[in-house]
Amino acid sequence: MKVANLAGRLHLITGTGAVDVADASAGRFDPDPARIYGRWREFVAWEREAALPRGRAFDPAELGPPTPEPSQLVAIGLNYREHASETGVPAPEGLPPVFLKFRSSLSGPYTTVHLPEGDVDWEVELAVVIGAPADRIGESDAAGVIAGYTVAQDLSERILQMAGPAPQFGLAKSHPGFTPLGPWLVTPDEIPDPANLRLSTLVNGEPVQDCSTRDLLVPVPALIAGISRVATLYPGDVILTGTPSGVGMGRTPSRYLSPGDTLITRIERIGSLRQHFVAA
Amino acid sequence: MKVANLAGRLHLITGTGAVDVADASAGRFDPDPARIYGRWREFVAWEREAALPRGRAFDPAELGPPTPEPSQLVAIGLNYREHASETGVPAPEGLPPVFLKFRSSLSGPYTTVHLPEGDVDWEVELAVVIGAPADRIGESDAAGVIAGYTVAQDLSERILQMAGPAPQFGLAKSHPGFTPLGPWLVTPDEIPDPANLRLSTLVNGEPVQDCSTRDLLVPVPALIAGISRVATLYPGDVILTGTPSGVGMGRTPSRYLSPGDTLITRIERIGSLRQHFVAA
Repeated sequence: MKVANLAGRLHLITGTGAVDVADASAGRFDPDPARIYGRWREFVAWEREAALPRGRAFDPAELGPPTPEPSQLVAIGLNYREHASETGVPAPEGLPPVFLKFRSSLSGPYTTVHLPEGDVDWEVELAVVIGAPADRIGESDAAGVIAGYTVAQDLSERILQMAGPAPQFGLAKSHPGFTPLGPWLVTPDEIPDPANLRLSTLVNGEPVQDCSTRDLLVPVPALIAGISRVATLYPGDVILTGTPSGVGMGRTPSRYLSPGDTLITRIERIGSLRQHFVAA
Repeated sequence: MKVANLAGRLHLITGTGAVDVADASAGRFDPDPARIYGRWREFVAWEREAALPRGRAFDPAELGPPTPEPSQLVAIGLNYREHASETGVPAPEGLPPVFLKFRSSLSGPYTTVHLPEGDVDWEVELAVVIGAPADRIGESDAAGVIAGYTVAQDLSERILQMAGPAPQFGLAKSHPGFTPLGPWLVTPDEIPDPANLRLSTLVNGEPVQDCSTRDLLVPVPALIAGISRVATLYPGDVILTGTPSGVGMGRTPSRYLSPGDTLITRIERIGSLRQHFVAA
């Protein structure tokens, strides 16, 4: 099942097009995509039995983030060995850095981003959306709290990030439009092995990141276990699982995004994001 | 005006006791304290003209956090020079580290905290609650987006915080009960100078922190300007403005909280928090 936020209304994306969930369920489910994660199990059971109408064509420009109001937008740093190495930091042992991004950075999958001052870099990341409250969930139970997967770009302004006595992860990655998410959520039944997905970034068509989630130092179930040992994850929350190597700051010379650039972010079995960059 | 969350309902705390806002306004305002910040200006104007009924006695144990569902629970690191110094880090120039805590760490002002494994330390902080969307707000306009002030403890588990290649601020400060907030919100008209408030922490009656917000490196208006230059602050969001010197990790030998300890956290003109610690 593919679940999308289309012009602010919850939709299923089927082989024939988009199906409005509130309409197809005769009002059983709220049209607001933010409200579905609190009823995720019921929603999945309904979809399995539902006789869905034929989908309609839709304008991809109307796609918003599949989870528009996470109470916690979690991100993971240094979760691929070669990425830690390219940024000159030792790979973490145990749980990598866990930080939160500002919700105001969220956007849909196809957007224009106004470049703030500084050096704006790309980071493709597999994103996990939470579908049940997760408090002290063991690795073996983590699958039960996952609603699905989506594609994220964790755009990062490196000058602010690296200034000061501690990395400014949260703020420097939270400019408007710095967390595009989408194009939709894909449920786990369509992703046989989330630890074996090719993920890539292209700048103006040129591949700059091209790796596999196989190389995650701490895979999804262990991330959920590690975070929920301390904090509670709520339905609709997102975990950006970290980026592999190939970011602009890891290159010689370093390379950042400029006005006119187009960034494509892809994860196998899920889909692509596309950001176009313009001057502020 | 003092605004409280009493057993999940919005109240004013007056000279005669607690007044239920939904009742006193004949239903004009929702009883849910989380919903008042989106209508803050209207609420303040109503309160100024309202003929309030006599307040009732209340049980302080029923107080919850004055803003129970911030979309972003912001915290500031190293915002007092002597605190940076006691932790062995140079004081930041410009904007100090800005990070977000997990919302699941929020609690009311009078609680029992189960000590997780590790070294749990105290940090008194002046907290600012946002009452209007703040996007690129200049310092001189910051007063217009402040709903009021409250007292926060930014409890911190130092072993997790300091492990790994980057400080684990967000997670190590997000165990359950690690962000007590209250006892109520006090509006700016009752706080003539937020940059001149005595703030203190006592462990089992012994003063361990006793400083003034006068020593904030970046005071409240500049914090709001600096954060909102990047991210949007939403009504109900909180900024914990940083802690002064006197934390347990800055002592020789270091000192952390143990089962049986009681922590009192005070800020002049606002009130006190009280946490009692027990083994996990």
